[in-house]
Amino acid sequence: MQELHLPLYTYLQKIRNTKPLIHHITNWVSIADCANIVRLTGGLPIMAHAKEEVADMVKLSDALVLNIGTLTSELVESMKIAAKAANEKGIPVILDAVGVGATPFRDKKAFELLDECHIDIIKGNASEIAKLAGEDVVTKGVEAVDIQLDLVQVAKKLAKDKNATVVITAHEDIVVWKDNVYVVKNGHPLMGQIVGTGCMAASVIGCFCAIDKDYGKLCAAGLAVYEIAAEKAARETFTPFAFKQKFFDELFKMDEVCDWMQKIFAL
Amino acid sequence: MQELHLPLYTYLQKIRNTKPLIHHITNWVSIADCANIVRLTGGLPIMAHAKEEVADMVKLSDALVLNIGTLTSELVESMKIAAKAANEKGIPVILDAVGVGATPFRDKKAFELLDECHIDIIKGNASEIAKLAGEDVVTKGVEAVDIQLDLVQVAKKLAKDKNATVVITAHEDIVVWKDNVYVVKNGHPLMGQIVGTGCMAASVIGCFCAIDKDYGKLCAAGLAVYEIAAEKAARETFTPFAFKQKFFDELFKMDEVCDWMQKIFAL
Amino acid sequence: MQELHLPLYTYLQKIRNTKPLIHHITNWVSIADCANIVRLTGGLPIMAHAKEEVADMVKLSDALVLNIGTLTSELVESMKIAAKAANEKGIPVILDAVGVGATPFRDKKAFELLDECHIDIIKGNASEIAKLAGEDVVTKGVEAVDIQLDLVQVAKKLAKDKNATVVITAHEDIVVWKDNVYVVKNGHPLMGQIVGTGCMAASVIGCFCAIDKDYGKLCAAGLAVYEIAAEKAARETFTPFAFKQKFFDELFKMDEVCDWMQKIFAL
Repeated sequence: MQELHLPLYTYLQKIRNTKPLIHHITNWVSIADCANIVRLTGGLPIMAHAKEEVADMVKLSDALVLNIGTLTSELVESMKIAAKAANEKGIPVILDAVGVGATPFRDKKAFELLDECHIDIIKGNASEIAKLAGEDVVTKGVEAVDIQLDLVQVAKKLAKDKNATVVITAHEDIVVWKDNVYVVKNGHPLMGQIVGTGCMAASVIGCFCAIDKDYGKLCAAGLAVYEIAAEKAARETFTPFAFKQKFFDELFKMDEVCDWMQKIFAL
Repeated sequence: MQELHLPLYTYLQKIRNTKPLIHHITNWVSIADCANIVRLTGGLPIMAHAKEEVADMVKLSDALVLNIGTLTSELVESMKIAAKAANEKGIPVILDAVGVGATPFRDKKAFELLDECHIDIIKGNASEIAKLAGEDVVTKGVEAVDIQLDLVQVAKKLAKDKNATVVITAHEDIVVWKDNVYVVKNGHPLMGQIVGTGCMAASVIGCFCAIDKDYGKLCAAGLAVYEIAAEKAARETFTPFAFKQKFFDELFKMDEVCDWMQKIFAL
Repeated sequence: MQELHLPLYTYLQKIRNTKPLIHHITNWVSIADCANIVRLTGGLPIMAHAKEEVADMVKLSDALVLNIGTLTSELVESMKIAAKAANEKGIPVILDAVGVGATPFRDKKAFELLDECHIDIIKGNASEIAKLAGEDVVTKGVEAVDIQLDLVQVAKKLAKDKNATVVITAHEDIVVWKDNVYVVKNGHPLMGQIVGTGCMAASVIGCFCAIDKDYGKLCAAGLAVYEIAAEKAARETFTPFAFKQKFFDELFKMDEVCDWMQKIFAL
């Protein structure tokens, strides 16, 4: 593994200066957290899901984040309309494949999204990505089960099949983009004690990928910045909700120190 | 401009003593914050949107707050039923016109609400209110774009057209009610770093307008109390989520000092 | 009344070790808080409501929590499908009867759930439970009105009629299970200043009832642990949102002291 030094703070400043609009069609659990994390990162959130308006919202937007956490058939129809509009406009579409592997309905709808639209960035935990890559796994709710797979190979397979950037979030995050594999080793275990940290990671990725086309590096950079905020928060707080507040505030306050704290590697 | 001294604390005590029920049909992003802010102000929140029950909920309620942040056609149908029931009962209907100007669908539904029901208080940011008043503006998502308009004239036009109180929230809030124009200069920039502060302002207005018919003064008073809580919080906290917690708690603790901190002017 | 000493910490450790999956079909106000409280207690939350997948989600789950706070006809259809699947699997179904008594629609749907499915644990405030037991009460929104009834008799009647455990949450909580009546005297008034504490109580009950069949004791134990966390938080915080953060963190940190702080009585 080769250590990388990505210009995290430069990316972050670009987000803060350009204030990209990040359109979400997401779940009802973490919708407020996702909107807030976009604001804290420097973007502007739009949360709107009516099928009659999502294509118009995409016209104003710089990235589209889809999250199937509390999906319904109707909501997925809106996602398809929005994703097609985003494809046409050329803005990145991020799919957070929450809970794929838990039910046949969820799998079916995720595959429909992947088949009927172009998803630029497919994000999930290990079991969700494995399921999308065709592996035989069962997701235990929205939490990953331990699986014994070569995750990098799984991500590469899916990335190639779908011509997409693939992001697996875990203790060490994996980003596969064309022939590149990045590993992000930032983060803190307290993130796992709070509902929605995975969803919020996708929103941060949305902010980063809104500023340029180099999705692989931008995904890795976004994850690193987000997880560095968590590391900074965890220096002073030791319980989930004191941590959560500090985590959010550290992201808002993030300065050039993120360049020094990054632990991003190329495989 | 003439400085006013409204009896803010007297209004607040009346809310706390009578505990008005504030029925919301609102968005899924700030629904929890809106419910909590009602409680912190002294009212009791009801959040219910099934078309089969909204008219019955209105029968129990003292004000109705409609917010189209994450509207669907179905949700707007429920809003119409509720608003008509509220009109019949004579309780104030507040419409927070979130995102009007962003998509044709949103504009259409907002105009339907204004045309088919009587809205007592129309609230929005500058671009949303300008759009409703017939100006040619584009709202960038749910965030206002800078617009060069005489906002007071715009608000007056809409107020007259719709026989309504019009509230524009901004650095300096404008309230137009019949021939009166109030400007509220309280508040703090940290409010803009948190998603949902606009929605919550409408909920606070709901609490204040539930206690009397003098909607112009009550809107100004509600905004001032809410924004004074923010000012107090910002004395000790400097990051969005430390601020948010303190902001909520300062509203809960608000005492007669709000009478001294108000910056309300008549134009 | 006879003071009991239930093995609260042993129960809590069992939850933390087995990490039961608690499937929720709930309201959009407290959905995030409910998911988080499950995590803080030691379980894993699933929030999913599409009719096409709820039965499959139940197959993975250890308890099912239904909450009609923001019900629609469609959502209740999903609840019925999920509850029938849970009945078949033999996992506990908890119904939080939010707002029953406020509208005929809400009453109708709550009775449909009770009639068409077996609800293992029926939870509500005094007026909600009284209404379900056939008493003539009106619920003022989602907040209980004062009612002059022998609540224990009311709960016993409902418990017998529906062959269920009945939980009335109040200053002193009542749990009726077969011939047993438990009273839980833990808790703190600041809980009432935060929206969603009742909903979260049902989620905690879900975690506890997921580990064994002794629902009466487990409901009392769950309420006690949850309310002891509130008592601990209220020692150091005196405003609703400082309290809320500490309350959540105290639940996460809960240790064997809960065995000593419990105030559970058998009638």
